[in-house]
Amino acid sequence: MNTFGTIFRLTDFGDTHGPCMGGIIDGCPSGLLFDIPFVQAELARRSLPGDGRCEKDEVRFLSGIYDGVTTGAPIGFVIENEDGIASPVTNQLLKPSHSSFVYKEKYGHTCNEQGGRSSARQTVCRVVAGAVAKMFLRNHGVTVTSRVLASSVQVPSGDTVGATVEAVIHGLPAGLGEPVYDKFDARLAAAMLSIPACKGFEIGEGFRAANMLGSQYNDVQNPDFSFQTNHDGGVQAGITNGEDVIFRVAFKPIPSIQLSQKTIDYQGNETIYASSNRNDVCVAPRVLPVVEAMAAHVTFDLMLLKQANKL
Amino acid sequence: MNTFGTIFRLTDFGDTHGPCMGGIIDGCPSGLLFDIPFVQAELARRSLPGDGRCEKDEVRFLSGIYDGVTTGAPIGFVIENEDGIASPVTNQLLKPSHSSFVYKEKYGHTCNEQGGRSSARQTVCRVVAGAVAKMFLRNHGVTVTSRVLASSVQVPSGDTVGATVEAVIHGLPAGLGEPVYDKFDARLAAAMLSIPACKGFEIGEGFRAANMLGSQYNDVQNPDFSFQTNHDGGVQAGITNGEDVIFRVAFKPIPSIQLSQKTIDYQGNETIYASSNRNDVCVAPRVLPVVEAMAAHVTFDLMLLKQANKL
Amino acid sequence: MNTFGTIFRLTDFGDTHGPCMGGIIDGCPSGLLFDIPFVQAELARRSLPGDGRCEKDEVRFLSGIYDGVTTGAPIGFVIENEDGIASPVTNQLLKPSHSSFVYKEKYGHTCNEQGGRSSARQTVCRVVAGAVAKMFLRNHGVTVTSRVLASSVQVPSGDTVGATVEAVIHGLPAGLGEPVYDKFDARLAAAMLSIPACKGFEIGEGFRAANMLGSQYNDVQNPDFSFQTNHDGGVQAGITNGEDVIFRVAFKPIPSIQLSQKTIDYQGNETIYASSNRNDVCVAPRVLPVVEAMAAHVTFDLMLLKQANKL
Amino acid sequence: MNTFGTIFRLTDFGDTHGPCMGGIIDGCPSGLLFDIPFVQAELARRSLPGDGRCEKDEVRFLSGIYDGVTTGAPIGFVIENEDGIASPVTNQLLKPSHSSFVYKEKYGHTCNEQGGRSSARQTVCRVVAGAVAKMFLRNHGVTVTSRVLASSVQVPSGDTVGATVEAVIHGLPAGLGEPVYDKFDARLAAAMLSIPACKGFEIGEGFRAANMLGSQYNDVQNPDFSFQTNHDGGVQAGITNGEDVIFRVAFKPIPSIQLSQKTIDYQGNETIYASSNRNDVCVAPRVLPVVEAMAAHVTFDLMLLKQANKL
Repeated sequence: MNTFGTIFRLTDFGDTHGPCMGGIIDGCPSGLLFDIPFVQAELARRSLPGDGRCEKDEVRFLSGIYDGVTTGAPIGFVIENEDGIASPVTNQLLKPSHSSFVYKEKYGHTCNEQGGRSSARQTVCRVVAGAVAKMFLRNHGVTVTSRVLASSVQVPSGDTVGATVEAVIHGLPAGLGEPVYDKFDARLAAAMLSIPACKGFEIGEGFRAANMLGSQYNDVQNPDFSFQTNHDGGVQAGITNGEDVIFRVAFKPIPSIQLSQKTIDYQGNETIYASSNRNDVCVAPRVLPVVEAMAAHVTFDLMLLKQANKL
Repeated sequence: MNTFGTIFRLTDFGDTHGPCMGGIIDGCPSGLLFDIPFVQAELARRSLPGDGRCEKDEVRFLSGIYDGVTTGAPIGFVIENEDGIASPVTNQLLKPSHSSFVYKEKYGHTCNEQGGRSSARQTVCRVVAGAVAKMFLRNHGVTVTSRVLASSVQVPSGDTVGATVEAVIHGLPAGLGEPVYDKFDARLAAAMLSIPACKGFEIGEGFRAANMLGSQYNDVQNPDFSFQTNHDGGVQAGITNGEDVIFRVAFKPIPSIQLSQKTIDYQGNETIYASSNRNDVCVAPRVLPVVEAMAAHVTFDLMLLKQANKL
Repeated sequence: MNTFGTIFRLTDFGDTHGPCMGGIIDGCPSGLLFDIPFVQAELARRSLPGDGRCEKDEVRFLSGIYDGVTTGAPIGFVIENEDGIASPVTNQLLKPSHSSFVYKEKYGHTCNEQGGRSSARQTVCRVVAGAVAKMFLRNHGVTVTSRVLASSVQVPSGDTVGATVEAVIHGLPAGLGEPVYDKFDARLAAAMLSIPACKGFEIGEGFRAANMLGSQYNDVQNPDFSFQTNHDGGVQAGITNGEDVIFRVAFKPIPSIQLSQKTIDYQGNETIYASSNRNDVCVAPRVLPVVEAMAAHVTFDLMLLKQANKL
Repeated sequence: MNTFGTIFRLTDFGDTHGPCMGGIIDGCPSGLLFDIPFVQAELARRSLPGDGRCEKDEVRFLSGIYDGVTTGAPIGFVIENEDGIASPVTNQLLKPSHSSFVYKEKYGHTCNEQGGRSSARQTVCRVVAGAVAKMFLRNHGVTVTSRVLASSVQVPSGDTVGATVEAVIHGLPAGLGEPVYDKFDARLAAAMLSIPACKGFEIGEGFRAANMLGSQYNDVQNPDFSFQTNHDGGVQAGITNGEDVIFRVAFKPIPSIQLSQKTIDYQGNETIYASSNRNDVCVAPRVLPVVEAMAAHVTFDLMLLKQANKL
């Protein structure tokens, strides 16, 4: 199931050690002035120079665009893996809190190649589709932004740390989202939890709401139908109410650390593992364009879906 | 989009003020000994005598079961609305933090009837499907349990309060969930956020992970492949690792309170609203079987889906 | 998979020997004046007095309609089985060309109960959903009609015969259908072949096209963009061109005949079977409203889907 | 909607005048020995030297295969368009019975670029996915073959002709297909009608069944559960019965002919069109591997889906 979305859909492929990543964006209406430099700029935010793997991430579009405008046909694209060609490390260790063990259980093979799909590298495809969604959204006055909330933790050399990201969708019309199982925030939650290393999602007051009284929490409306407060984070009963959609996403520390850790190999023998790769210290700030891309994707998809509700 | 699940699917209907709620459970394998008293017991947990609306919730199965065993055909069911027949109140107030405003924006009508789909009453259908999932799961040694985490808030008379629920899925095999967009925890998150009043989801350490170091967080495996710790909450890279899946869900205070609140009517005139119905003080404990039902639904669906991965 | 449609969706249940048939119509826009007598009239066309089972087929709508107008919520409905309550015949014969053998292979049980889903009785649910689609279509000037094409075969007493049905969708706009896998005629073909006893589908010239030259076949357009001929049957490259959509559907003889036939029982012993029920001689004319219902369903669904193509 | 299949899924892209065609095969189980020469041989059958466009069609796999074996990850692939780079002809004629008019109505643009999706060129992607399906099927003893049925029509120079193709799926187990809307033959019909120029589908006796008696038509079983006849074409009540699945597909004449035809331009002015390209005279025999590919795709998808029916 490498497809995301109902009407506006991304299907993608690519192994982190293979020749390239790529995808197909389907359901994109015809007639959009296609802004390739913007896509490239979003990709650049994701591949900020840092400690970890850093690629040029030049995207090549292969279909669905003619004379700089979308045609309504599916948009195929590829992004080369420059570092990837090197060497698929088929080591025999189960890296702690990594995908190695669960992939072995799921697919029955003990090479690391498959792990390519769980790598953060996969998120380049999300950023491309998200950038296309953002192009449409900005034509409708909708923006998606995000920031890292400060962490008070000091990170020793060779270690990693988690992060909380807060994002805001601004300019949304009221009425987006489906009442029961496809609530706007249910879709957002699934989108966020599908990002590697994500461990939590909350909207508006989120977990704080559990300790609030109804009389404190309820958002009262003004005579112009705007709201005096936004404890609900812009979504009520699963449907946008026209206020900013505000949500937060929790990420765990990147599991690959340079410090030595106990672990086992595929045969169950105890051993020691220390990552020798240069890894990022934290998913932030490189995860920001990914969070925004997924939020933009969900928003645009539900805008298209809403149109199918009427006749 | 009133359908939930990929292989094991619930589609349901019913307006809170209509004659009944009902649904169709599809994708249920044949040959399951069908335990109607168990379904009824799960429903009873949801309709605990409390301050709010209380119904007998007797479920009537209409198809898909023969001689006490599932046949593989879709299972239709209905549950009468005893209170519901009464009077669809078409009042003209926009209840604060309620569905009234967003439904008007979405559907263009200003009666409260539509609100029936956003009512907690809809969750009876989830509990029925979840009970069927639990029947299969217990045959495979999998259990789903939950509890309310204590809140320190004192609730004045006529007010309401939020809640945090923690749930555990025990006995799961490793290898469930799909790698990218249909991760086990992404599906769980969507399932939970689809429950009325839910505002947050976290798995394992969740939001606490944001302030942890990789060296503290990583779950190290024993020579027998079990884990020494379970910071990841049983899911790594979106796939179950065989440990307990542990997650928490945040609920906001029920928006209907008996205290007077400012609000507006559909024309934008300021007015005062105080609920005259007897409402629950908190979604908990009645929400527990709903949380469990959705978790069981996701789990069983991904177990069936996993089988389609092989040949 | 007891669901049909992408946006406008019918999910249905019901065993031919159970208490009722029923379904849920989802994706129905709000604001449609709901014409229950019309639904009932379409059902009456399906249950014409004949030789076979004949029921009153009174439909009861349970949700999604308020004050005679659709609300946008799912529409639940049930239709009682009056004959059905009687006795689920669990005979041990494999009826020739019937569902008995394949259901045993698929579900592993040897009772006839499951066969209820393959019974023509299931089509009452299709007629209900199709009638709702027709209500919308007629508001847009689209009609669906059908007729039985004459057969030259004389049917001896106790025997049955097949039929060819021709249907016309009139008043369609150009531009419906998706280019590659969800072509208008691909959807129609699937819809027709899903009707019990259907063995073939053709559109426009259909199988005759195989023996035509391009110079004879091609449909030339007039300066007003209308077409001089309609060999393509209103669909080109999978998309409607504004001409009438004309298609034909082949049905096999009803397999239950009163004449004695050789067959075997579930243990493989040779035996003789002759149906003692009063069965129809031919699926026509009772299948006409079913053909129309499925065609209306596909058409309305693709009209809604088309709206999601734009922004 | 450029995706085909439920579990085993092909999503593809590519404009006939763009740089390449390509696709993503998802849901392919891990552990299959991947036979690239076989894929290439199937592609060669589709690009037989003839009168029309002829390309080398070398497929390049980009992911999902490691050490010659599938990993369970999505399989990305591309095939260069050698002829295509040349010149996207943006002529202003509406070619008779072609996609030009309906694409203008659907997408609102009047260039021919979009037509690339309706071109037979798109079928290379189907052949690649179909070859992968065939690899699995042959491991389970299932084969898919096809042939052109003779046509008695003489084709004058510069003209084209239609064709009927008959295909056989041999070695299938009984029990494949879903009872109501996802019948084996309903899926096959949709798959066939999605092939460019297809105008009809029939299974077993097909349209001949309309003029047969039940006593002639019914397939009687032997004590070993095999069938004495196969009028039903291997599918009863939508589910395979273990006999050969036999079906026929009608194709219209290729609309591009070198003879002069009346037509109009996009403004509605009358004009004359004669194709100056070298086109094939008939879709057959090049369509045979496409018919087989789609049949293999449907079959393998329903085999995987069946596995999800049990627990």
